[in-house]
Amino acid sequence: MIDHHARLTALRAHLAKQNLTGFVVPLTDEFMSEYVGAYAQRLEWLTGFKGSAGSAVVLRDTAAMFTDGRYTLQVREQVDGDDWQFVQVPATAMTDWLAANTVEGDRIGYDPWLATTGWVAAADAALGANGAALVAVDANPIDALWDDRPAPSPAAMEVYPDDLAGRTSADKRAAIGEWLGERRADAVVLSALDSIAWVFNVRGKDVARTPVALSYAIVRADGTAELFVAPGKVGEDIARHLGNAVTVRDIASFADVLGRFAGKRVAADPDRAVAAIHGALSAGGATIVATRDPSVLAKAIKNPVEIAHHRAAQARDGAAMVRFLKWFEETAPLGTLTELSASDRLEAIRGETGLLRDLSFDTISATGAHAASPHYKATVESDAPILPGQLYLIDSGGQYQDGTTDITRVMPVGPVSDEMRDRFTRVLKGHIAIDTAVFPDGTLGGHIDGFARRPLWEAGLDYAHGTGHGIGAFLSVHEGPQRIGAPNYPGGGPLEPLRAGMMLSNEPGYYKAGEYGIRIENLLLTVKRDIPGGDLPMLGFETLTFVPIERSLIVPALLTEAERAWVDAYHAKVAALLVPLLDGETAAWVEAKCAALV
Amino acid sequence: MIDHHARLTALRAHLAKQNLTGFVVPLTDEFMSEYVGAYAQRLEWLTGFKGSAGSAVVLRDTAAMFTDGRYTLQVREQVDGDDWQFVQVPATAMTDWLAANTVEGDRIGYDPWLATTGWVAAADAALGANGAALVAVDANPIDALWDDRPAPSPAAMEVYPDDLAGRTSADKRAAIGEWLGERRADAVVLSALDSIAWVFNVRGKDVARTPVALSYAIVRADGTAELFVAPGKVGEDIARHLGNAVTVRDIASFADVLGRFAGKRVAADPDRAVAAIHGALSAGGATIVATRDPSVLAKAIKNPVEIAHHRAAQARDGAAMVRFLKWFEETAPLGTLTELSASDRLEAIRGETGLLRDLSFDTISATGAHAASPHYKATVESDAPILPGQLYLIDSGGQYQDGTTDITRVMPVGPVSDEMRDRFTRVLKGHIAIDTAVFPDGTLGGHIDGFARRPLWEAGLDYAHGTGHGIGAFLSVHEGPQRIGAPNYPGGGPLEPLRAGMMLSNEPGYYKAGEYGIRIENLLLTVKRDIPGGDLPMLGFETLTFVPIERSLIVPALLTEAERAWVDAYHAKVAALLVPLLDGETAAWVEAKCAALV
Repeated sequence: MIDHHARLTALRAHLAKQNLTGFVVPLTDEFMSEYVGAYAQRLEWLTGFKGSAGSAVVLRDTAAMFTDGRYTLQVREQVDGDDWQFVQVPATAMTDWLAANTVEGDRIGYDPWLATTGWVAAADAALGANGAALVAVDANPIDALWDDRPAPSPAAMEVYPDDLAGRTSADKRAAIGEWLGERRADAVVLSALDSIAWVFNVRGKDVARTPVALSYAIVRADGTAELFVAPGKVGEDIARHLGNAVTVRDIASFADVLGRFAGKRVAADPDRAVAAIHGALSAGGATIVATRDPSVLAKAIKNPVEIAHHRAAQARDGAAMVRFLKWFEETAPLGTLTELSASDRLEAIRGETGLLRDLSFDTISATGAHAASPHYKATVESDAPILPGQLYLIDSGGQYQDGTTDITRVMPVGPVSDEMRDRFTRVLKGHIAIDTAVFPDGTLGGHIDGFARRPLWEAGLDYAHGTGHGIGAFLSVHEGPQRIGAPNYPGGGPLEPLRAGMMLSNEPGYYKAGEYGIRIENLLLTVKRDIPGGDLPMLGFETLTFVPIERSLIVPALLTEAERAWVDAYHAKVAALLVPLLDGETAAWVEAKCAALV
Repeated sequence: MIDHHARLTALRAHLAKQNLTGFVVPLTDEFMSEYVGAYAQRLEWLTGFKGSAGSAVVLRDTAAMFTDGRYTLQVREQVDGDDWQFVQVPATAMTDWLAANTVEGDRIGYDPWLATTGWVAAADAALGANGAALVAVDANPIDALWDDRPAPSPAAMEVYPDDLAGRTSADKRAAIGEWLGERRADAVVLSALDSIAWVFNVRGKDVARTPVALSYAIVRADGTAELFVAPGKVGEDIARHLGNAVTVRDIASFADVLGRFAGKRVAADPDRAVAAIHGALSAGGATIVATRDPSVLAKAIKNPVEIAHHRAAQARDGAAMVRFLKWFEETAPLGTLTELSASDRLEAIRGETGLLRDLSFDTISATGAHAASPHYKATVESDAPILPGQLYLIDSGGQYQDGTTDITRVMPVGPVSDEMRDRFTRVLKGHIAIDTAVFPDGTLGGHIDGFARRPLWEAGLDYAHGTGHGIGAFLSVHEGPQRIGAPNYPGGGPLEPLRAGMMLSNEPGYYKAGEYGIRIENLLLTVKRDIPGGDLPMLGFETLTFVPIERSLIVPALLTEAERAWVDAYHAKVAALLVPLLDGETAAWVEAKCAALV
């Protein structure tokens, strides 16, 4: 049994020696990643919390865990309430809590490699108003106490072939060089791992679920670059692939190199490059041009090669999904399945393709009331039997070298209630409203989000998550900057203009606490739409995911004629795409599932 | 003929004497009003520009006029291109232009009574990057040169009776006092004229189209207040109405009084209180609590008394509108009408109610291609004949003591094209989609805006303005904070949560440059919606405006069954409301216009 109380006590003693009265522990890494490696799981080490988002503050006499609504229950199960207060964000921001819980003379430490400049400014202001100070530490105190802390992954960096990427790294770097020229800037620091992977056409195995390698990069206005990576990770193949215009340096030298831009203008992304990067640039005499990482938008707009490969990955993944769904439909009524055994089966089927590199995220395999938590993750402790009368929700995806997938389907186990079918049909109507939307080029994702919700709103219902996120090309399953969601969704993604080539998920849902959850998710490609007689350049969506939507859950009377036609046309395409890839029995099952609605 | 060139030359000479190399001339007043009195029309005095939004910068060798897309043509007609560059905002922000057109040592003056702190910060940064300085002037240089500058209006401040306001000023001030207490603030400065009118239940005649009086106010945490107004404007009735808890002071003493809050915390709205107010508070040693004027949201949420009075004003205004529309339909085919003669007739009919205090804005009476400019204003020079085959658009409203109205209708003159009827029907579909929307309490106006556009988007069309604005209770025809519009609409209104009691316009449109314009506008009241079986507190809209929507422009085949039912139900309500108020002939005309669609 791990003694988290002893760890907290040890940390407090360590802080006291350093003349600190507190310390901030976020769950992130020095690349501001969504998923982090084991070496960066300092929050779990200190508190026991195993969720994927949260942070903590340790003061001399109190300590607080900050989590969002997804983890309200989980944090109480995993973290000791005698040692920790539980604070829900965003209702109470950490900076507000700091303002309310610090006094004059307090010195609160933070690790500048794990914080953005925006957070530093907000925390500094909150503490400053009390006469307290925010203090950057040279080394993270937790690392000094964490005896068996894992080393960062030693996995080799891999070449991502140009014929999959569709564009050479030299071409991408030349475009960044031009972008720098327009801003009269000399260089840009890249620190987001997926940005580096995209710019240099490399991948890695250092982070679970996202095929990236721990690295930093600096690209200069002439298109040359320095790539910072641990020496053991770079083989001959990478050196050959990168060519002469890219210098590979030891990642340990990164901070030093940042200090050598005196008199230069260096672009850095305030949301992606940590405070330590800004600090090192400033200390070295560089002028920082605060602006979004130039690869963020370029990466979001997929090129035709990436799109073609993605379609191949979708066909493969769709064939795996229908094998799974057929097996599920036949097996679930026996009453022997559980959430984990079902998701294990799906992973095995995906694995049988021979091309699965990883899942694209931890599968959400949720039955009955568990599915009412949109981000539920089955564990050995929670693993529930799948029982008749339930709706079973499976949200999953694969990382294939030619594409990243993400799909959600819901299956009934035996007969289910009329209410469930009504709700499923409303979610489907919202899904269709997004799939068929047509809108001017540059419309914001937040401007079309309401289409997905209207059929639920009309029944007094809604769902408490966004409708769609971007997705990478063999990269992050959640990739910005675009998003379909309420215009005030945190992070601003729904205020990003939609452009042709962007991929998005389309995943409205409905969740009834304690009873069931529904979500229907396909991926979409944003495409140009030529409308005869129209005034404006318009966009629409092409569906990328082809897997039957469970017909027994659809109430045809609730659909308009156009919506029924959409379902029939979608299913016709599913059958045409998948039948050639399937054995006879599965093909027949798909054809039956794809027959026109009656 | 006014010699604007001579005025510009004189201004430059005056600036040189004051050691300034430039000066900024916005079109606003010291209350940040949307419409300003004649005394504050400095931009027109200097340049000849008669539009309602714009600004100018005068430098030693160059000068620039900044206007938005509405005034691209008008500015070129009214302002001398030899003296002035024409710059379109927001494509080029004035601060960017200043950054590109100033050099080290430049000293650019501005009047701190005509600028927000946000603008000052942005301009200061833009100039500072060049080594130039932004300099607050003590007196506006234009006032020194403008010999026949009108005095501010001397009209008396008027009592707005509590039985119209629905809430006493003492009650409103007590609520503001509580709000101050929650923020540990001692007082709040109110400088928006409609805020002061609402808080003190007073009105005025100092500004065209908006019944407000030039004034400032300070409300303290105990609910007492000081009201600053020119001495001649306040009679015995006002003093009695305001009572002992409100001290009336000479508006000339306002800046001095702001300097007497040493050690106090004083709330001021960064978007509504000018930089000079912030400066005077700071200079006097006050701590400024930058926050939105507390009356803004309270004023937007109408109370039941205001709502009941508004309905009465709408019935009166609707009866006037149908008298006008009947007259128009009968007279226009004669070919003798012009835009101005038509709007004069409407104003006369509204005047015959005996209760019209003013128009709520300059009527938009636009025929044919003129209506393709959403904000067209007919002048003696532009006044166009109304001809067969045209669509005629009339957007107008009245200020009645019991309510402010705003309505747009479109009428055909003889037969019009199928394309016009198609577009009209699409605009109507969008109008209905907003009118019938149901959404969770607190949904943002930007979240539902897409509903209004979808029928146009599907045809490759759109309109380049918002869908709905708030409206005052015998106050401003454009009243924030709420708005229905694209989520990135300037000013942030579409990111304001909608709440029960808010009034909004619903006015989608379509504009074909050089040909015609269409807009259908009703006012709506946001109301609670109880939905059996629903999970959430929901809102919807109740229609407030009842005037027939021209049936000959509707293509019934383009409407869904539900949309046709909406049109029929709306028209049934129009007839039920208006027929009792009309003479027999007009009543018969309305009944025919309101028959069910076939």
